[in-house]
Amino acid sequence: MKDVVISEFEVRWGECDPAGIIYHPNYIDWFSVARMRFIKENGLSYMESFHDQGLVLVVIQVGLSCKKTLRAEDKAYVHARLEVCTRTRMQFHYDVYNESGTLCASGFTEHAFVDIPTNKAVNIAKRNPELWAILQGLPVTQPETH
Amino acid sequence: MKDVVISEFEVRWGECDPAGIIYHPNYIDWFSVARMRFIKENGLSYMESFHDQGLVLVVIQVGLSCKKTLRAEDKAYVHARLEVCTRTRMQFHYDVYNESGTLCASGFTEHAFVDIPTNKAVNIAKRNPELWAILQGLPVTQPETH
Amino acid sequence: MKDVVISEFEVRWGECDPAGIIYHPNYIDWFSVARMRFIKENGLSYMESFHDQGLVLVVIQVGLSCKKTLRAEDKAYVHARLEVCTRTRMQFHYDVYNESGTLCASGFTEHAFVDIPTNKAVNIAKRNPELWAILQGLPVTQPETH
Amino acid sequence: MKDVVISEFEVRWGECDPAGIIYHPNYIDWFSVARMRFIKENGLSYMESFHDQGLVLVVIQVGLSCKKTLRAEDKAYVHARLEVCTRTRMQFHYDVYNESGTLCASGFTEHAFVDIPTNKAVNIAKRNPELWAILQGLPVTQPETH
Repeated sequence: MKDVVISEFEVRWGECDPAGIIYHPNYIDWFSVARMRFIKENGLSYMESFHDQGLVLVVIQVGLSCKKTLRAEDKAYVHARLEVCTRTRMQFHYDVYNESGTLCASGFTEHAFVDIPTNKAVNIAKRNPELWAILQGLPVTQPETH
Repeated sequence: MKDVVISEFEVRWGECDPAGIIYHPNYIDWFSVARMRFIKENGLSYMESFHDQGLVLVVIQVGLSCKKTLRAEDKAYVHARLEVCTRTRMQFHYDVYNESGTLCASGFTEHAFVDIPTNKAVNIAKRNPELWAILQGLPVTQPETH
Repeated sequence: MKDVVISEFEVRWGECDPAGIIYHPNYIDWFSVARMRFIKENGLSYMESFHDQGLVLVVIQVGLSCKKTLRAEDKAYVHARLEVCTRTRMQFHYDVYNESGTLCASGFTEHAFVDIPTNKAVNIAKRNPELWAILQGLPVTQPETH
Repeated sequence: MKDVVISEFEVRWGECDPAGIIYHPNYIDWFSVARMRFIKENGLSYMESFHDQGLVLVVIQVGLSCKKTLRAEDKAYVHARLEVCTRTRMQFHYDVYNESGTLCASGFTEHAFVDIPTNKAVNIAKRNPELWAILQGLPVTQPETH
């Protein structure tokens, strides 16, 4: 099990705006990549264990704090960790560092388990007890303080 | 002057994800559209008054809360208002309603004034006194409580 | 029936790149909006008549020609028409004009009817005879020559 | 010098549409990443050698052919090569393969050299003779036939 999973990015030309810097919603998109990678490196595939089971980790809350800009071709590293994991909620924390190790952004996403066909929030322990058994084994840790 | 400026959207196919619902970073993208529209309907063009002057309203903080999903072809209305306007900061609040008037999402963006060539935060009253004179006239109001 | 359906856009800040102009893949995204609008203004909802029936108009070929750039806050008008409609293919043509009526870009998308659950191309006359009856009534016209 | 430069991608959740497959404009976005990587692996940085010099390789023509779908978490490999390089034009060809080596998509982008401040096409040999000297050394090859 890995407390922190690091995903590497290279800022894309199309991820930047006319100010020449990364357009901020793209950080939130990177968080999705980092979250799925966190899940995968801890033994689950989001697509197979959630999506193909008609489940979505729907986003109910997002926070983003931007400290330093990045531009196209810059390397970036998103450190993802799981902060909360209950029968009805998961919350992830993300820190984005540039190549020299400076914190550029940080944020969190809070999720509910939603059944895709009915579009209703579910108790994962009831809806998918086997998945819940696995989720309980995921490492829940608090973010680094800055 | 308009306290609240409403921007209309129709959810695009490409704004939705494999769960069939709007992908949440796109709300943050809509906020940019709604913010620029707020500025325009209150007498300024973001492109002419900020961008062409080498200024960017860089995002330093974002909050998003999602309450109800939207899918492709759904109409949505983003109500934007200005919450804070000082020499160094602007903060906008956004409420997203669907066609039947249900609140689907809400959020805020906090901005600093940044000089594009130097990538440094500036005091707008010093950097662009004429723009600051206009900004002081913008209607600052608090969001509706839900 | 409408031979040509016009969709209005205002270039979004997030649709532009560090060169300050619309990032070209976004034209292809606009084409999706324009195509769905064409279908809707001719009596069908893409979401209800295709997507909800487990059908996707999957893209097999795209062409795009860019003539004049657009920047954020510019208005643009996409003129969409249907060029080909057979039991296995649909092809649409798009012309993008700016506010002064100058052609900025044009392109086409060619589509096959694909069954989402099996991810296989289908003959729409066999798969959905009622939908095929309606599609046969759509106006097929050739693009304006420039 | 490398005739073909391979860029690796993992399809992002946000790059897929409600049909559960990669949304086709994202291939065109990948082409930009692959093109900049081609340039970089052949000794130039797009950001430093073009963008920072006020030059953009503006897109004038795009072609895309889709053969097989990809979904989120799938690996993909874009093989980029340079097909044409003159004083006024560059054309790149791209082939997208999945993890098992099947061709999923292919396409091309044709570019003009444009001066960002004036938004005018330029002869690169006159505008930036040193850059032109380097560009002449890039390997120009024809795409694999399929």
